[in-house]
Amino acid sequence: MTEQCTIEVMPGDKQLICDKGDFLLEVLQDNEIQLRAECGGEGTCCNCQVKAAPEDSMEYEAGDRLEAEKRENGYFLACQVKVTDDMQVEIPASSLISGQQILLGEREEDYLEHRLDHDLDIKAESLYQRQLLEIPEPSLQDNTSDLERLRRELQQENGDEFYDISLGLLDQLAGLLRDNDWEVTVDFCDQLSHQKIIGLSAPGPEDYYGMAVDIGTTTMVASLLDPQKGREMARAGEYNHQARFGDDVIARINYASKNEGGIEEVHRAVVETINELIDKVRDRADIDKNQIRYIITAGNTTMTHTLYGIDPNHIRHSPFTPTFSQAPTLRASEIDLDAHDLAPIYSFSAIGSFVGGDIISGVLSSGLSEQEEMSMLIDIGTNGEVVVGNSDFLIACSASAGPAFEGGGIESGVRAMDGAIEQIYIDDDYEPIIKTIGDKAPVGICGTGLIDLIASMQKDGILNRSGRYNTEIETDRLRQRSEDNLEFLLVSQEKAGIDEDIVLTEHDINHVLRSKAAIYAAVKIILDRLSFTEEMIQNVYIAGGFGNYLNVDAAVRLGLFPDLPRDRFVFIGNSSLAGARQATLSASEFKRSREIAREMTYLELSSEENSADFMDEFVAAKFIPHTDVSLFPSLQE
Amino acid sequence: MTEQCTIEVMPGDKQLICDKGDFLLEVLQDNEIQLRAECGGEGTCCNCQVKAAPEDSMEYEAGDRLEAEKRENGYFLACQVKVTDDMQVEIPASSLISGQQILLGEREEDYLEHRLDHDLDIKAESLYQRQLLEIPEPSLQDNTSDLERLRRELQQENGDEFYDISLGLLDQLAGLLRDNDWEVTVDFCDQLSHQKIIGLSAPGPEDYYGMAVDIGTTTMVASLLDPQKGREMARAGEYNHQARFGDDVIARINYASKNEGGIEEVHRAVVETINELIDKVRDRADIDKNQIRYIITAGNTTMTHTLYGIDPNHIRHSPFTPTFSQAPTLRASEIDLDAHDLAPIYSFSAIGSFVGGDIISGVLSSGLSEQEEMSMLIDIGTNGEVVVGNSDFLIACSASAGPAFEGGGIESGVRAMDGAIEQIYIDDDYEPIIKTIGDKAPVGICGTGLIDLIASMQKDGILNRSGRYNTEIETDRLRQRSEDNLEFLLVSQEKAGIDEDIVLTEHDINHVLRSKAAIYAAVKIILDRLSFTEEMIQNVYIAGGFGNYLNVDAAVRLGLFPDLPRDRFVFIGNSSLAGARQATLSASEFKRSREIAREMTYLELSSEENSADFMDEFVAAKFIPHTDVSLFPSLQE
Ligand code: FES
Ligand code: FES
Repeated sequence: MTEQCTIEVMPGDKQLICDKGDFLLEVLQDNEIQLRAECGGEGTCCNCQVKAAPEDSMEYEAGDRLEAEKRENGYFLACQVKVTDDMQVEIPASSLISGQQILLGEREEDYLEHRLDHDLDIKAESLYQRQLLEIPEPSLQDNTSDLERLRRELQQENGDEFYDISLGLLDQLAGLLRDNDWEVTVDFCDQLSHQKIIGLSAPGPEDYYGMAVDIGTTTMVASLLDPQKGREMARAGEYNHQARFGDDVIARINYASKNEGGIEEVHRAVVETINELIDKVRDRADIDKNQIRYIITAGNTTMTHTLYGIDPNHIRHSPFTPTFSQAPTLRASEIDLDAHDLAPIYSFSAIGSFVGGDIISGVLSSGLSEQEEMSMLIDIGTNGEVVVGNSDFLIACSASAGPAFEGGGIESGVRAMDGAIEQIYIDDDYEPIIKTIGDKAPVGICGTGLIDLIASMQKDGILNRSGRYNTEIETDRLRQRSEDNLEFLLVSQEKAGIDEDIVLTEHDINHVLRSKAAIYAAVKIILDRLSFTEEMIQNVYIAGGFGNYLNVDAAVRLGLFPDLPRDRFVFIGNSSLAGARQATLSASEFKRSREIAREMTYLELSSEENSADFMDEFVAAKFIPHTDVSLFPSLQE
Repeated sequence: MTEQCTIEVMPGDKQLICDKGDFLLEVLQDNEIQLRAECGGEGTCCNCQVKAAPEDSMEYEAGDRLEAEKRENGYFLACQVKVTDDMQVEIPASSLISGQQILLGEREEDYLEHRLDHDLDIKAESLYQRQLLEIPEPSLQDNTSDLERLRRELQQENGDEFYDISLGLLDQLAGLLRDNDWEVTVDFCDQLSHQKIIGLSAPGPEDYYGMAVDIGTTTMVASLLDPQKGREMARAGEYNHQARFGDDVIARINYASKNEGGIEEVHRAVVETINELIDKVRDRADIDKNQIRYIITAGNTTMTHTLYGIDPNHIRHSPFTPTFSQAPTLRASEIDLDAHDLAPIYSFSAIGSFVGGDIISGVLSSGLSEQEEMSMLIDIGTNGEVVVGNSDFLIACSASAGPAFEGGGIESGVRAMDGAIEQIYIDDDYEPIIKTIGDKAPVGICGTGLIDLIASMQKDGILNRSGRYNTEIETDRLRQRSEDNLEFLLVSQEKAGIDEDIVLTEHDINHVLRSKAAIYAAVKIILDRLSFTEEMIQNVYIAGGFGNYLNVDAAVRLGLFPDLPRDRFVFIGNSSLAGARQATLSASEFKRSREIAREMTYLELSSEENSADFMDEFVAAKFIPHTDVSLFPSLQE
C-alpha cells in the first residue's frame, strides 16, 4: 500500500490526507482549495505560492523562479512540491482563488428580478418544451398519418411552425401512440427556423431544466432554471479553466494559434468548466444530467469561438473579423457537454470581434432596446464596451481599457476577492479608512477601491489633476518608490493579510487614468457620431463584475462616467448571465436577442475615420476628471 | 486454383465462365441475365425455370417442386442447379425479367417533355445548389464575421432565407476564404424550413447531379439529372429487389411484420435496388458517387415507409393510418445510399395509406392541379387511384383493383414484357391478329392486350355483356377448360414462345371485369360525391405502367374509363418518375408537391358513408360496359 501523508492547512485548520509523492498543488485542488495556477502547474506563473514546513517533508526542484526573499521566508511554489512526509501548509490570500470573486449575480439582482417579474411572462414558451399531447384516435373518416396527427396537435397548441423529426423517433411513433391510448409526451426544441422533435415518450410528467451560462474570460457562472415554473433551481460559479493559457483573451488566442492542438486545448478547457458548473448545479438541485435539456451561453466573441472549437485567431488581427457572429445551434454531445445528448446548445450572437454575445445579452437584460428613452450601457472589463440606443436604433463600440480595473498591472491590485479593499478614503490626517470584501484583512485594492481612492485623493488635494502626488502634504505615508515614482502607503505589512505593504503608486494611478480615459473617450466618440449631448442619455446601465459597490459619484469625479444626475445610473451587475437567464425562460427573449444583434451598428474605433479622434479624446481624458472641466459641471461648485 | 466451367446460353449465344460449384442462377444474374427469382432462390416460386443439359454437368436437388412434365422436358430451377461441368442453357422468355418490362418512360414522354420545356424554367433553383460566391473582403469599416458575410451574399443571391451551417464546416470557413482571395464554392440544400450549407470548397467548377427515383412496387426507375443545365444524363430501370418478399404491397407488409428483422430486410432490399440504379446511371454518365448530391423519391406509401425503414404494418389494418405522410429529409449515409454522404434524400408526401407520393408526383407532372378546367387522373396498378380536381381543389380515392391488368391471376397473363401480346383482335374467321412487345414470339397477354381483346370480343359477339363466351360461335378455338370455365385459344403452343397454349378463360375475363369495375366504381363515387357529371371532366390523365399502347376506345368499351370524347384522354405514362424529375430540377416544383398533398382531400371508399355505395357501383360495373348502358352513349350507335 502507498504510504500516506497528512497535510495541515492554514487558514481553516483543515487536515488533508494524500499519497506520498503527490504534488501539493493537486492535493489542495482535489480538496476544493482553489489555488491560483495560471501557468497550469508549470512553475512559471509563480501564483501558487504557499508557506510550507518542514523542508524535509518534501521534494522541491523549482530552481530560482521564486524570488530569493520569498524562499528565505519559507515560501514554495505548490505545483513544484512533491509531498514526502507530513507537513504544515499556510496559504496566503493572494494565492487563493477566492470563491466570492466569482460574481454570482445574487447581490445586484434586485434590478433584474424586478425585470424578470414584470416584463417576462414566466409561462412563456422556452426554446425547449415538453408537452403531453392527446392525439385524436384515427378513424376511417380521418386516417391521416400518425406524424401528421402529431404535427396537427403541436401546431394547434403552439402555432403554425414546421416540426421536424428524426428517423429514429419516427420509428417509435406508431407503437408509442397505440400502446398509450393516443397520449404521448413530446420534447421539441426551437431551431429558430423551425421546431425539431427530439424526444417521444409515454405520457407522464418528468421535470426538465435549462441552463444559462455566462462564459466570462475569467469566471463563468451558471444558472439552472425550471422553464415550466419559471424559477431558478441552483446557481454556481467557477474559474474559467482557460486561465492556465493566459489571463486575457489575447493570451488565449495566442496560445490557441501558436501551439499544435492549441485550439482543441482551449476548447476543452471551456467545455470542462461548463461541465464542472453542471456538476455543481446538478448537485445542488439533485438532478440527473439527462434532465438538463438545453443550454444557453453568453460570452464574448473569443469565448464563444473557443466554446465551438473555432480558431479565434482572426479576431485579433486587423480588420478583426470573427469567423461567426451568429453561432449554429449544436447538440450537447457534439462538444461533450454533460447534459442530455440531444440537448441543444444556443449562444447569444455577437456583432463583431469586440462586441460579443455577452454584451447583446446585457442589452437584452437591461431593457435598453425596448424603451423609447435614450440610454447607454457601459460594460467595464479588460475591454470597455459602450452601447447607446433605444427601441429605434442601437450603436456599440469597444475600447481596450486594460486590466487596471481588475487589479491587473497595479502594484497592490487584486481582483474583487475576499480581503480586497473596495471602499476607501483618506481622512484629514492622511489616514486611510478602508472597507474590504468579506471584512477580511486587506490583501490589496480592487477596481472599485481604486476609483474611490483616486477620486477622493484628487478632491482632497493629495493628487493633482494629472494624477501626480502633491509632495507638499505632510505625511510619512507618501514616499519615493523609484526615481520617477512616488507611492502612498495604504496598509502596512503588519496590518495586511499579505507579506507586503499595500500601496498606491503614481504608475498605478497612470494605469487607472489610461483605463478610464479609454472608456470615457469611447463614450464621447459614440455620442459625437450621433450628434448627441450627454444630457440626452436618460439611463446609464453599468454592467460588469466590479459594479456592486462602485461609488457613482467617485466614478464621475474620476472622469470615468459622464457627469449626469446620479440617479440616472443603474447597476445591472452580471447582465450577461441575466440576459441568458431570460432567454432560458423565454424563447421570444432569445429571438429578441438575435434581433438586437441584427439591429445594432458597430462603430470601429480603430478605423481610419475614428482612430485620430479617439486618440485625441483619449489624451484629453487622461486628466482628473478631464482637460475640459466644463464637461463636468457638477464638480465645479 | 478452382476448376472452371463454361456455360453456353441461348438465346443470345453467350459464353459464360464460372467456378465449378457455383449456382446457375447466380452465374446468370452476375452476367446481367435477369432471371425471375421472386422467392429469392429458395426454390419455391418456380419462376427461374431453364432448360439445361447435359444432366451430368450439374448437381440438382430440387425435389418435385417443378411439375413432372417440365422436368421430363429438361427443365430445371436455375436456383437449385450447382454447375459441375460445361453445360448448355436455354432460357425461356417467361423466365426472364425483360429489360423492356421496366417502363423507363421514354416513349410516353412527349407529353412530359412538353411540360418540362414550357412550364419549367430550367434555370430554376433546385433543392440542392452549388454557387461560386465572391465575398467582399472585410475592412475596418465592415468587419462583420466571415459567416455573416457568407450569409449576406447567399441571401443577396437567393433571397432572405436562413442558412444553417454545421460546426465542421464553420471550422474551415476562415481559412478557405483567406486562402482563396475571398472566393468560395458553397453547396447548400433546401431543408424546406431553411437552407443548410453542406459543403464549402475552393472556387472551381465541379459538376453535380440530382437523381429522381420512382419507387414502384414491381419496378423502379431512376433518372440522373444535371440541375444546372436542366437536362437528363442517364436513366435506368431495375426490378424492386423486394420482389423476393412477395409480389404486392400486402405481401411485403406481411413479410416485414411477421419476420424477425423483416422491416430491416425489406428496407435493405429497396436501398439495394436504388444503389443498383445508381451504379447503372453512374456507369452511363461516367460520374463518381460523390457527384450525386441529392435524391428525390416518389413511391406509394408502403414503399416510402420501407425506404425509411419504418414499419408499414398499420397501413393495412383499419383505419389504415400510415406512420407518416410527409417524410423527413435524410442524409444518404443515414440509409447507406451510394451517393455523397451528406446528400439529402427527399420524398414526395403521401396523403394516406393508399394515395402515396407516387400519385402526388403524378398530379404534379400532369399539371392537373395548376389548371382551371376540371380534370381527372387515373393511375392503374394493383390499386387504382383516381384524383379529380383543378387549381382550386383536389380529391382522391383508391380502389383495390387486383393484379389482373399486370397479368396477375390470369391464366396466360404476363407483365408488359418482351413477347407480351399488347394489341389483339379476333377476325371474322375467329383468328386472332396479334402484336407483341418487341415483336417477339408471344409468351402471354398483358394488360393492354386483355383490354383490347375483351372489348373487341364483346363487340363482335364472342362474349356477352357478363363476360361469358357465346357458345354458338363456330370455332375450335373455343373449348371447355373445366366444368364451368370455357377458354379461347389465342396462340397454340407450337407458335408460342413458351411451352403452353396461350388462352383466355372465362375466369380470366371475370378477373379483368372485377378490376375494371373497381376502378370505374371509384370514378363514379368520386364524381357522385362532388355532384359532378362525367361530362364536366375536361381531361383524363392516364398514368401507370401499362399506358403506352392502351387503346382508349377499347377501354371505354370495356367500361374501364368513362365514356368521354376520346381526345380528352392523355397518356402520361410513368408520371411518378416524371414528377420526381420536375422536382429534381426545381425546388419550387417540389414545394408545390407538398402543397398539393396538403390541399388534397382523401375519400376513404371503405368508410361507413361510402362502402355500401361503392359496393353497389362495383356490382353494377361488372358488366361490359356496365349494367346501365345509358352511361356509355357513344357505344349505342
Ligand atoms: S507556478 Fe504557476 S501554478 Fe505553480
Ligand atoms: S424457384 Fe424461385 S428463384 Fe428459383
